[in-house]
Formats: sequence, C-alpha cells, structure tokens
Amino acid sequence: MPVEVVFTTKIRVKCLGISTGRRLIALSKRDAERLGFKVHDRVEVRASDRSATAIIVTSQKLVSPGEAAVSEELAEDLGLKDGDEVVLRLAGLPESLMYIRKKMRGQRLSRREIYEIVKDVVEHHLTELEIAAFLLAEEFHGMSMEEIEYLTRAMAETGQIVDFDRPVYDKHSIGGVPGNKVSLLIVPIVAASGLLIPKTSSKAITSPSGTANTMSMLAPVEFTAEELKEIALKAGGCIVWGGKLNIAPADDIFIEVEHPLGVDPTSQMLASIMSKKLAVGVDNLVIDIPVGRGTKAETISEGRRLAQMFVDLGKRVGIR
Amino acid sequence: MPVEVVFTTKIRVKCLGISTGRRLIALSKRDAERLGFKVHDRVEVRASDRSATAIIVTSQKLVSPGEAAVSEELAEDLGLKDGDEVVLRLAGLPESLMYIRKKMRGQRLSRREIYEIVKDVVEHHLTELEIAAFLLAEEFHGMSMEEIEYLTRAMAETGQIVDFDRPVYDKHSIGGVPGNKVSLLIVPIVAASGLLIPKTSSKAITSPSGTANTMSMLAPVEFTAEELKEIALKAGGCIVWGGKLNIAPADDIFIEVEHPLGVDPTSQMLASIMSKKLAVGVDNLVIDIPVGRGTKAETISEGRRLAQMFVDLGKRVGIR
Repeated sequence: MPVEVVFTTKIRVKCLGISTGRRLIALSKRDAERLGFKVHDRVEVRASDRSATAIIVTSQKLVSPGEAAVSEELAEDLGLKDGDEVVLRLAGLPESLMYIRKKMRGQRLSRREIYEIVKDVVEHHLTELEIAAFLLAEEFHGMSMEEIEYLTRAMAETGQIVDFDRPVYDKHSIGGVPGNKVSLLIVPIVAASGLLIPKTSSKAITSPSGTANTMSMLAPVEFTAEELKEIALKAGGCIVWGGKLNIAPADDIFIEVEHPLGVDPTSQMLASIMSKKLAVGVDNLVIDIPVGRGTKAETISEGRRLAQMFVDLGKRVGIR
Repeated sequence: MPVEVVFTTKIRVKCLGISTGRRLIALSKRDAERLGFKVHDRVEVRASDRSATAIIVTSQKLVSPGEAAVSEELAEDLGLKDGDEVVLRLAGLPESLMYIRKKMRGQRLSRREIYEIVKDVVEHHLTELEIAAFLLAEEFHGMSMEEIEYLTRAMAETGQIVDFDRPVYDKHSIGGVPGNKVSLLIVPIVAASGLLIPKTSSKAITSPSGTANTMSMLAPVEFTAEELKEIALKAGGCIVWGGKLNIAPADDIFIEVEHPLGVDPTSQMLASIMSKKLAVGVDNLVIDIPVGRGTKAETISEGRRLAQMFVDLGKRVGIR
C-alpha cells in the first residue's frame, strides 16, 4: 500500500489588510527555510472549516518567526482574524493545470476537464499566470462548439442560479461601439408587453459609463439574486448591476486576466455572455452584434459568423 | 501643439521588507481613490536618481494616508529606506507591450522590437503576465532564426559582458537526463590542454544537485564577473555559479515565468544557452543533446534538428 507522508504546520496568523489581488501568506525567512517553503510555492491554508490555496512570500520585517501574515483576500476567504490558527501544507499542482497544458498542446478538452478548470478558477486554486495560459491557449488554438458549451455550462453552474418558473426574455449587445441607451428603452417596452426581462448589466471598465452606471442615476442597481427575482417578478423587468449577484463568477476572474493581456478569445466571449444568460434562466435572447472598424466583427461576414455561433451555442444550452 | 498633462504625487515611503517577487507599492485606500489609482495600475516610482515601474496595491492597515509602503524588490531597485520621498506617476503601457501583442498575432518581430522587449524585461517594466504572453506566443507561433539571433544578442547585451582577448572554449548540455559529472571532468582536461574554459553553471531547480551545487562541495563557486575573469586566466579554467555574474539577466526572469507555465519554447532555450556563451566570449562550443524519452529531443531526427539550429545560430553570433 502506498504511504503518503504529508508535512503540515500549525501557525498563528495576523491580517495585513493589504489587497494585492492574490491570496498571499507571508512567513519569516527563517520559518520558510526551516519548513522548506520557497517564495511562489503553493500552499493549502486550512482554517477551522474552510481551506484555500495561497502563495508563499517571505518577509524580514512584517512577521516574526512563529507567525504568518495573510493578505486581505485570503483573510476574507477563510474568515480569519488576528491570532487565529491555520494549518499549512504544501499543495500539489491542481489537476486542472494538466488540462490547461493539454489545451496548450492544442488538444480538445472533455466536459470533466473543462469543469475542473472552471471550478479551480472560481475557488482560486489557479494563479493568474495559469489562467493566462488557458486563455492564450484558447486564443491560439480555438475551441470546438462542444468545448464552448461545456465552458458556458461550467461558468453558469459554478455560480448563483436564478430560476423564474416562466419564460424569460433578454437582449444583449456584445459591445464595441459607444452608446448604452438601448437597454434603458428596451427593458420597459418588453416588460410593458407582458414579457419577463430581468436584465443584468455591467459598470464601465474603459468607457465613460456602463448601463449599470447610467441606471444608477435613476434607481438603485445593487441587489442580491433573491432581490433581483423579487423585483423582476413584481415589475416584469429590471436593470441591475451584475457585480453583486455572484452570477457566473468565473467570468470576472477571466476578465481580470484578459484585460492586461489584451486578449478576448471568441470562445471566451461566447461563454461569458451565454453563461450569465443561462444562470438567470433566459429562454429567448436577442443578441446585438455591431459590425465595423473597431468593433468585435470588422466585416458583415465576420458578424454573420459570430451570429451563427451564438445561435448554435444557444441551441445547445436551450436559449433561442 | 498637443499638451500633455501629467499628474505626479510626492509621498514618503516605508519599507515592508516583504518579498513577493514583484515590485509593489501600497497606498491607503483613501489615497488611492483620491489620486485616481486602482489596484493593478502600473506606476512609475522615481527616487532621487533612479526610477522603476511598480504595481499599485491598497491596504487598510499597513499604511496611513500620506504614506506608501514598498516591497523589498522595489526598495532594492531604488535604494529606498524608511522616510525617503518618491514621486509617483501613472505609467503608460510600455512600447514593448505592443510588440508582444504583435508576436501574439503571429507576426515577425524586428531587431529593435525584440531588443525593446528584452530591455523592458530586465528593467522590470513588464509584468509576469505580459512576459508569459510573450513566451506563450513564442511557444505557439515559433520564431525565425533571425528573431532568435536578435533575442540571443539582446539577452547577452542587456547584462555583463566578459572579454578575454583570446579564444574561449566551452561545453554545455541542454539537460533532460540526470548526471552532472561531465563538466567536473571536462573542464580540468580542457584546461590542462592549454585551452581557456571559463564554465558557468547553474544550481539545481528540480534535480537533487546542479553542477554548481556539486562543485561548491569542492571549492567556492560564487564570484563576480571580474573574479571569474581573473581565476579563469590564472588557472586556464573554472566552474562557477552563474547566478551572481549578472550574465544575460533576462534569462532568470524568463525562467521564473516558464517554470510555473510548464513551457520551454525552443527559441527561448536556444537564446538562453547561447546568450550566456556570447556574454563570456565563447568562440568554440560543444553542445551535448541527450536524446530519448523524457529529454528535450525525443527522437534522433529531433535531436539532429536541434543540433542544426544550434550550429546555425552559432554561425550568426560567431560561435562554432
């Protein structure tokens, strides 16, 4: 019988209250050496009932031997406060990393492999670099429609699902041209026609104002998934900010990596939009694809190709 | 005439003594908001006579409004100590990032474009993510022999150059099989034959012991470039650790990103080895290419192809 020897270390933490966008745990150089951890090592940090993967850093001044300091992201994930005890264990490479490397070699991924990757993205077991490798492999090698379906479903199912028990309508623009006045007009028109249209929208990243920003001048836009459901059922429609809903949470993480890389693989764009629609139970969807210079479809034929992909993907996940 | 408005901020720093592998500067959330900086923003940090690019993070507890905390890497680069004043300025995207994106689109890079990328890697103007994008673009699209020559020269010229004024001999194995006893035998034999062989070697990353580790049991291996020259000229040969020599310093940075990504593009492997040889003035080089399962050349014909690439690249940079 194979025997697995696992070294674990108990250590008290202090919370640094520092946000770096990553889950970091700082040890004194002496402790790190004594325990055999190197900077950049991946460790499993276990608190009473939760665990998370974090990256080791060392510090000469911030921590004394025998204690560890944690970044805000890690403290939040594990609900840590100063003086809490955690158990550290060198973490193996996540299985999903093997699947990312498989995609990097240009091979197709199975449903299980794609679910594993998305789950590890949402649970923060993969580093920014590893997520970047996945996105660039998508960009260079592309994905089959089957893979895009798995990606879409995995992104929807790893977040909050809202179920309305009746037909849901929506419209979405893939963006690329300024102008976000359309949703503000369409939602009340559709709702007035008696169709349910619970629209989620984004705040601006690069443009002066996203639909959620504009709407927030007229009414509150920050709601939980339960509130979204209540409001939509009562009013027939709504325009809320997607950020607080925990709908397809992998998407925000993918976007954070795509942005500095300057990539937006078609497969990822399709899955990003459709996973959010799937999560709020959309059955009937109109997609607006602006065509022309500077948009995501430079020519009419490119626009038609994209449109066909949305239709194909929609059929697979039950959205028409 | 176009007017450029640049906002700068003066702020006092404290040194955190924390090593994260990145140049980070932490502001209080209030200051970051007031100054218009977001987490992940790239800023130029200027001390009295030096400047570096750093990434913004925010902290609620570590820094008070009006002060900034810097990571050890940034403090070292700028020679900062507690209470020093620095000037912060939102940094534009480096030009080299445009060239990385060009390579990502599969286009060839010019000499100037490749030099710009390597310079920005060495000067820490590019983030890990951006370097990863460059390496993955190399992996997916490959590089022409001309591009590999520019990469090799740029990596050599952005570091220390050692000039011996006489013919220099060397041998190098591209690795992949255990066993590092060869250099310990070859160097004294070659030196005894009257040929100059100043060998630099690495410490182990994944194997139990690198050549530099083994040699360090017999003699000191940590020297500066000047000491290397003195020793080699006196003894006819030496085996020293490359880590302290600042020879082709871009290579260590590339390797730090390649390792977690699990990639080693052929173009990068060629440039990595040959840039170090070029920097210590090697004229005559023997390359050992192990062939077989688990090595870098799985078949004899793959080995021959690699060998031919080394010969071609050598001709271009004056090494035979």
